[in-house]
Amino acid sequence: MSGVFGMNIKMSIYGESHGKAIGVVLDGLPPGLKLDEEAIAKEMARRAPGQSALTTARKEKDAVEIQSGFFEGYTTGTPLCARIVNGDQHSKDYSILKDKMRPGHGDYAGYVRYQGFNDYRGGGHFSARLTAPLVFAGAVAKQALAQYGIVIGAHIASVYDVQERSFNPMGESDATLQGLNAKAFPVLEDAVGAKMQERILQAKGELNSVGGVIELMATHVPAGIGAPYFDSLESRLSHVLFSVPAVKGIEFGDGFGFAALTGAEANDQLHYENGAVRGYTNHNGGITGGISNGMPLVFRVAMKPTPSISREQKTVSLSKHADTTLTIVGRHDPCIVQRAVPVIEAVTAWTLWDLILEAKKWEK
Amino acid sequence: MSGVFGMNIKMSIYGESHGKAIGVVLDGLPPGLKLDEEAIAKEMARRAPGQSALTTARKEKDAVEIQSGFFEGYTTGTPLCARIVNGDQHSKDYSILKDKMRPGHGDYAGYVRYQGFNDYRGGGHFSARLTAPLVFAGAVAKQALAQYGIVIGAHIASVYDVQERSFNPMGESDATLQGLNAKAFPVLEDAVGAKMQERILQAKGELNSVGGVIELMATHVPAGIGAPYFDSLESRLSHVLFSVPAVKGIEFGDGFGFAALTGAEANDQLHYENGAVRGYTNHNGGITGGISNGMPLVFRVAMKPTPSISREQKTVSLSKHADTTLTIVGRHDPCIVQRAVPVIEAVTAWTLWDLILEAKKWEK
Amino acid sequence: MSGVFGMNIKMSIYGESHGKAIGVVLDGLPPGLKLDEEAIAKEMARRAPGQSALTTARKEKDAVEIQSGFFEGYTTGTPLCARIVNGDQHSKDYSILKDKMRPGHGDYAGYVRYQGFNDYRGGGHFSARLTAPLVFAGAVAKQALAQYGIVIGAHIASVYDVQERSFNPMGESDATLQGLNAKAFPVLEDAVGAKMQERILQAKGELNSVGGVIELMATHVPAGIGAPYFDSLESRLSHVLFSVPAVKGIEFGDGFGFAALTGAEANDQLHYENGAVRGYTNHNGGITGGISNGMPLVFRVAMKPTPSISREQKTVSLSKHADTTLTIVGRHDPCIVQRAVPVIEAVTAWTLWDLILEAKKWEK
Amino acid sequence: MSGVFGMNIKMSIYGESHGKAIGVVLDGLPPGLKLDEEAIAKEMARRAPGQSALTTARKEKDAVEIQSGFFEGYTTGTPLCARIVNGDQHSKDYSILKDKMRPGHGDYAGYVRYQGFNDYRGGGHFSARLTAPLVFAGAVAKQALAQYGIVIGAHIASVYDVQERSFNPMGESDATLQGLNAKAFPVLEDAVGAKMQERILQAKGELNSVGGVIELMATHVPAGIGAPYFDSLESRLSHVLFSVPAVKGIEFGDGFGFAALTGAEANDQLHYENGAVRGYTNHNGGITGGISNGMPLVFRVAMKPTPSISREQKTVSLSKHADTTLTIVGRHDPCIVQRAVPVIEAVTAWTLWDLILEAKKWEK
Repeated sequence: MSGVFGMNIKMSIYGESHGKAIGVVLDGLPPGLKLDEEAIAKEMARRAPGQSALTTARKEKDAVEIQSGFFEGYTTGTPLCARIVNGDQHSKDYSILKDKMRPGHGDYAGYVRYQGFNDYRGGGHFSARLTAPLVFAGAVAKQALAQYGIVIGAHIASVYDVQERSFNPMGESDATLQGLNAKAFPVLEDAVGAKMQERILQAKGELNSVGGVIELMATHVPAGIGAPYFDSLESRLSHVLFSVPAVKGIEFGDGFGFAALTGAEANDQLHYENGAVRGYTNHNGGITGGISNGMPLVFRVAMKPTPSISREQKTVSLSKHADTTLTIVGRHDPCIVQRAVPVIEAVTAWTLWDLILEAKKWEK
Repeated sequence: MSGVFGMNIKMSIYGESHGKAIGVVLDGLPPGLKLDEEAIAKEMARRAPGQSALTTARKEKDAVEIQSGFFEGYTTGTPLCARIVNGDQHSKDYSILKDKMRPGHGDYAGYVRYQGFNDYRGGGHFSARLTAPLVFAGAVAKQALAQYGIVIGAHIASVYDVQERSFNPMGESDATLQGLNAKAFPVLEDAVGAKMQERILQAKGELNSVGGVIELMATHVPAGIGAPYFDSLESRLSHVLFSVPAVKGIEFGDGFGFAALTGAEANDQLHYENGAVRGYTNHNGGITGGISNGMPLVFRVAMKPTPSISREQKTVSLSKHADTTLTIVGRHDPCIVQRAVPVIEAVTAWTLWDLILEAKKWEK
Repeated sequence: MSGVFGMNIKMSIYGESHGKAIGVVLDGLPPGLKLDEEAIAKEMARRAPGQSALTTARKEKDAVEIQSGFFEGYTTGTPLCARIVNGDQHSKDYSILKDKMRPGHGDYAGYVRYQGFNDYRGGGHFSARLTAPLVFAGAVAKQALAQYGIVIGAHIASVYDVQERSFNPMGESDATLQGLNAKAFPVLEDAVGAKMQERILQAKGELNSVGGVIELMATHVPAGIGAPYFDSLESRLSHVLFSVPAVKGIEFGDGFGFAALTGAEANDQLHYENGAVRGYTNHNGGITGGISNGMPLVFRVAMKPTPSISREQKTVSLSKHADTTLTIVGRHDPCIVQRAVPVIEAVTAWTLWDLILEAKKWEK
Repeated sequence: MSGVFGMNIKMSIYGESHGKAIGVVLDGLPPGLKLDEEAIAKEMARRAPGQSALTTARKEKDAVEIQSGFFEGYTTGTPLCARIVNGDQHSKDYSILKDKMRPGHGDYAGYVRYQGFNDYRGGGHFSARLTAPLVFAGAVAKQALAQYGIVIGAHIASVYDVQERSFNPMGESDATLQGLNAKAFPVLEDAVGAKMQERILQAKGELNSVGGVIELMATHVPAGIGAPYFDSLESRLSHVLFSVPAVKGIEFGDGFGFAALTGAEANDQLHYENGAVRGYTNHNGGITGGISNGMPLVFRVAMKPTPSISREQKTVSLSKHADTTLTIVGRHDPCIVQRAVPVIEAVTAWTLWDLILEAKKWEK
């Protein structure tokens, strides 16, 4: 079981890369949320492929058809199903994958887990195509979070060996964060972004791929969201962030950098600022004791290089039970990082909303 | 809500640092599991404080009283409650904490979340004392995993600026991993371990604290455990690992190191070895597509320095709504890393068992 | 939240009576289950309207389009989405229902719950049309249960004042139960069934409606399915049975009849029969201590008369905040009982399968 | 798995009849709920045995020790564990039950489910003793519901062939309902209650037992609690009501009586009364479309006769794999109905609270 996520709002995803359609059922959405469908379409477009030389040549319009739960411009409060019809499929490209396991992909592990019955075409349900429904869910969540003034922005902190400045942990302006949302290649420093893009195109030219790091900041998150132990904000966020294909590392605030600090340096000492409790620093990335503390939420995720590369690689043939080689044909992203940015934002938005609803139960 | 974790086996923890007792209810345990109570006591002792100059002077025996679900030496299959009575409490040490929020702790965030009603003594439910029930749950899980031949070992990869060699991602011997379990200060290289301990004592002397990194390896994990998306092995593990106090970062396999590799370098190419599919490398730490792939499971967690230090720190007084300072008195760990090792192992064991039971549903 | 049901297999339903489509996502289905699509279509047809004078004149073909999770004739193990496009809608019939609450329906309660945002056309998400996805889920479950030899049959025990014989609690033959599945109006005694149908047509003629009782039997259910307390077989079954619109009562075995028995009469005394433990009687309907005991599972559900009747009824106008009257126009079932039979079977099959998968976790 | 119930507040029960202790962990309780411990003790006493000739001679004080989650008179919002130490056990009475299965009990079904490892003494975890933690959870919930003005009362509608008047479905006064709470043998008509008690003592004299029906009413339940389909108020309530040992039937409002009504009779027509929408009748027992509609909640549960009777009964010996007889010695309740009344109230209170918290998420 793996397709349902959330406590107070649950998303139930379905679909395979080369099936009829993919989609998601959102259960528990509050009634009366006005949905801006154009804003949703814009989020979908941010993730969609085929937009530049940096991404796969596959063209998927990712037009969302809402099936239910949406009436006269508002959520009804009953389950909202969003469906995206699959198109532009080259299923014949993939038939060899039934037998030869792609290195770095979930093919072999999935073969064992699904006893050979999973749809092998384009990775089937494992495909990053399934992140489209996540972006839809996140687009709805973002509109809900806007009611609370919460702003989410993310940038490409690094691609391979090219890296740009990190967010100021004490906070970035709304304009900066919203500006990132509007960029096709979301970076803080455009000159560095240009180098990153060069690096991606170089990898493409070499039939290779590269990974990178995405950093996200959410500001105006109220204090008191989350809990100690199993529903800590870090727990809930990391759970869904590691559900995004290719994510292999997560750190909140200083993260691995904490290991090189002493307590005296790492503790965020406190004071009042305009009547609110604030840290002098924000090493903890806005979370202490598993709960938001009113400082900006900051985390970083590491994404591995796209496993699909067009070079010959060593692998196994299951049918022959023998070693062999595989050269993956087809159209691939030399770097998944820029397309992952809206996905990372989306699952973050979904989870913040879920925990805000959790906190509402205890309101007097 | 935050106290229940697991899908097929659920643990429900309870308790506060200075309350009557802490404990855990384990629901869904298979009947007929013979429990070695001595082995459980040994695991509890690994986490318990008061064992050396490296840890807090508090002495908690952490004797577990099983209340239910255990009959004539075997689990019954009905809920097993384990209870640990609190002792050696100096509640008077903590009264000031009702008003002054400790920097780096969850005090302020928890004050908001719990509307001022949470037990502030020693951190209450936020206290790392609650990791004792986690260790108990893990000790039961480890005995179950032994049936499958799974071996879990962890070491202190670094303390502040002292670090030792990493695990060989292709696997360590059972003897090496089990040897770590037996060590009071689990390191691969004892000389480095000695330096780490020096570093901890130096921090203690300076009324300061240090953090570090723990690396865990689990070998003989069968391929096919986990799922893509929301129940990925990384998702389930990170969820519970970030529930452990002070954990601020997690990376599987190469983790953040992936960002500096190309796809050609990062992909674990495959071959048959003694009839089994194996990688030539294990950059992915034993997980691809969210599912175990038969290679050793490897991950690293970053732990921040203990926030409790005996230096004066700036903070706020809630009652006076004013800035103030706080010098925390009492007994603290100058480094939590070595005591966290069995906790990290425990929640890993619990989660692996949970996912193994998940996979059993689909057995023919 | 209300759209997700199941522990090991989860169904997530969506849709409204007059929306674009309705459907269900089935998560956790084991891979490799061969699906007979014709048999599924047959189950869908049993519930579909427009087949005789006994039911509403609405015609819905209820053709199921599987979107995902089904590949080359087998379930993949990843989420299976089934979609049914809505057709033959007369949305204009329903506009008055935004204001005037239909007596006996969930209109007013739903108005409050959904704050006036729910789709009022034809009951929207409350519509019994949503039982079509339940029948689909049950049709899949029935094919899985067939592997275990489990046979499920149900009959119309009564319609208004016409009642037929009950099942023999000691068991009915497979032929009898399967024969019921094949009948358009499933009764044990056709002569009584004819009277029931007359009674329904009489109600229709009088612009009225009638209810009734459905009795279900499942044979060859293995002993050991269920649990004491919260996952008792009665708990899980009643949960989902009361989710079926119009169900207002449930009794297992002798049910309310137990109140008129002494313990000496009511206890099912035991003996061995062909090596298996069996009761001399089956007052408990195959469940003791919340767990199946190897005897036939027997329960009865009471269904209220269809609330939609074409007579003038007293009700309220929300817009005018005043008393008024309402005459519901449109096409309605004078009796929902016969169409509910496959729904009752479906949710039972789903739940039995869920609990069988639960038990598999503990297999050695 | 079976020990955890609830969505927004979860209770996790543990314990066996003859183990060390039984108890419950309540997770998700809102912080700041002032608990009246005396009122809790009074509820516990209502269920406790040994109070009259009508009940078992076993004496269990059922003194609750709160372990956590309760601080300075208020709930903290962190898990609250309540523990009840077992006492007055005659474990030797029960040893034969390892081999001989008691008719009417869950012994054989449980033997299969738990593979022979469950604690057979006094029914172990299956024992109705586990309803003590349910009463505790309900006592907490009742105090929360009092904030909303909700009043819950229940009476013994029948014992064997003796029955008293039903609740007026349009509502009973607070005084009537609260008066029932205060009675040792809760009936509306004391003369009928005396006959019921005679009937119970007669059964006791005949080494026999009797069952009965409990009817519950909750008034001042706000409209809008519950949902269509899987979280219908009927679904959630029946789920937990069937978790109470010996419950075999449930009906809401007219329940099985609906089958004998026409739609014109059964529909609760509506009007305004003091500005609120009310039914002219309340056949639906306060629930339409799965959601509370503002009318009194009314339901009835059927309880079977206590299976433990001191007559010789036919059963099987598992060790000899042969038919045999069993005469159960020990102390038993000739009727469980009166002791079940506070349990039925308790699980109802818990579930209403859970669904009220659910509704709070959608408050503006």
